Amino acid sequence: VGAASIELHALAGIPAVREGDDLAALVEQALSRAQLQLRSGDILVFAQKVVSKAEGRLVDLASVAPGPQALIVAEEVQKDPRVVELILSEARRIVRKRPGLLIVEHRLGFIMANAGLDQSNTTTPDGREYALLLPIDPDASARVLRARLESRHVHGLGVVINDSFGRPWRRGTVGVALGASGLAALLDLRETPDLFGRTLKTTIVAHADEIAAAASLVMGQADEGRPVVLVRGARPASPRGQADVPARDLLRPPEEDLFR
Amino acid sequence: VGAASIELHALAGIPAVREGDDLAALVEQALSRAQLQLRSGDILVFAQKVVSKAEGRLVDLASVAPGPQALIVAEEVQKDPRVVELILSEARRIVRKRPGLLIVEHRLGFIMANAGLDQSNTTTPDGREYALLLPIDPDASARVLRARLESRHVHGLGVVINDSFGRPWRRGTVGVALGASGLAALLDLRETPDLFGRTLKTTIVAHADEIAAAASLVMGQADEGRPVVLVRGARPASPRGQADVPARDLLRPPEEDLFR
Repeated sequence: VGAASIELHALAGIPAVREGDDLAALVEQALSRAQLQLRSGDILVFAQKVVSKAEGRLVDLASVAPGPQALIVAEEVQKDPRVVELILSEARRIVRKRPGLLIVEHRLGFIMANAGLDQSNTTTPDGREYALLLPIDPDASARVLRARLESRHVHGLGVVINDSFGRPWRRGTVGVALGASGLAALLDLRETPDLFGRTLKTTIVAHADEIAAAASLVMGQADEGRPVVLVRGARPASPRGQADVPARDLLRPPEEDLFR
Repeated sequence: VGAASIELHALAGIPAVREGDDLAALVEQALSRAQLQLRSGDILVFAQKVVSKAEGRLVDLASVAPGPQALIVAEEVQKDPRVVELILSEARRIVRKRPGLLIVEHRLGFIMANAGLDQSNTTTPDGREYALLLPIDPDASARVLRARLESRHVHGLGVVINDSFGRPWRRGTVGVALGASGLAALLDLRETPDLFGRTLKTTIVAHADEIAAAASLVMGQADEGRPVVLVRGARPASPRGQADVPARDLLRPPEEDLFR
């Protein structure tokens, strides 16, 4: 189970992405420039930002009118009321709030700060302010990207869409999978016997999250220059033959959540 | 910031580790067999299991006499009272308990299931049952391993000790850094300007955790055959010149913990 070597390559020269751009075509051009050929089993990890931008999830803050709840919460958390309006519109519920901090349950089920809204790269030189929302359905985005990549290259590819998440008990962010297609996002190794022939009891691995974190190491954080990473060698044979488990299966069901 | 390519190689043929074994020597032999030379900037990731075993952290369950609290908790969580005794002896407090589940704050500050005790590989063929505790001080273990590796090979190495953690809101485990030396476990990118010249506000990356997760992809889970991974290319230049930030700095201070 698992490969003994993995390579990660950030694709160079992906241009700034705009609404409607064909990410699969941009990947094809980048691969061609780098003289890389996709192989069956390769996984491409896309930063959430470029997927969201291609899908037109950029919102001009000038177009947002904060409602009464957003105004109240914005004062409490000391954030722009327009941004808070967008966060709440993307959220099922507020999980925790403090000055400077707004953790919500995103409509997709993720427990995350600011519903994943990104503002760091979204003030343009013309002074307009934007916020970038998560893709509508990241597993579906991954599925579409995979289909486009497979039709251009080779079958048996995987796609992961990643983002940086904070954690409740650890400082700093780590890459996490928002969407996945063509791989087992959750890898059940429970029936694999260990060296003593005992069966492992509790080893279910968040495979797509580990891929997302690894890709994040090469994406860097400060620019959009390396938003796509080729991961080669990371797709283990699953003992249960799980071929395609979406990232939504990584969400713990609310009834198992001990930290609401 | 960050490399554009990373390679991960699991070192083949590391034998079963016993108390007192010199892990640096085992690594040297494995590198030699693989005809790999360590370079400055390389990071070696060690599975917690082998570090704990080398440090003699295996406890024979027959030697453990559960106390009154362990007996009560063991019944509630439906675990072996001797194991619960060990978990409690390693813990500062119980965070959550349910049948089948015991989450504690480890004496080192980690919020984790079973205080990191591992039983999956610790029943030997002679039928004796063991539990394996975390290293006494994983950052110190990483420091010692790094010094031994640097004296045998080259300076400028990094060492990470990883383990698999569950998360409160996501299913499956991910590799996490218990100890680190020679790299910035927490990487502060806040002063890196983005493409628009704006300064990033909140980008502090749990660099050692991302390395730990990436290494976990090649370690596999079901055996101890690949407990050491060479990571090449993952050490970014830190904008603030942070050279050596231990893994303990990844722990969120209790006063910032909103999910106690």
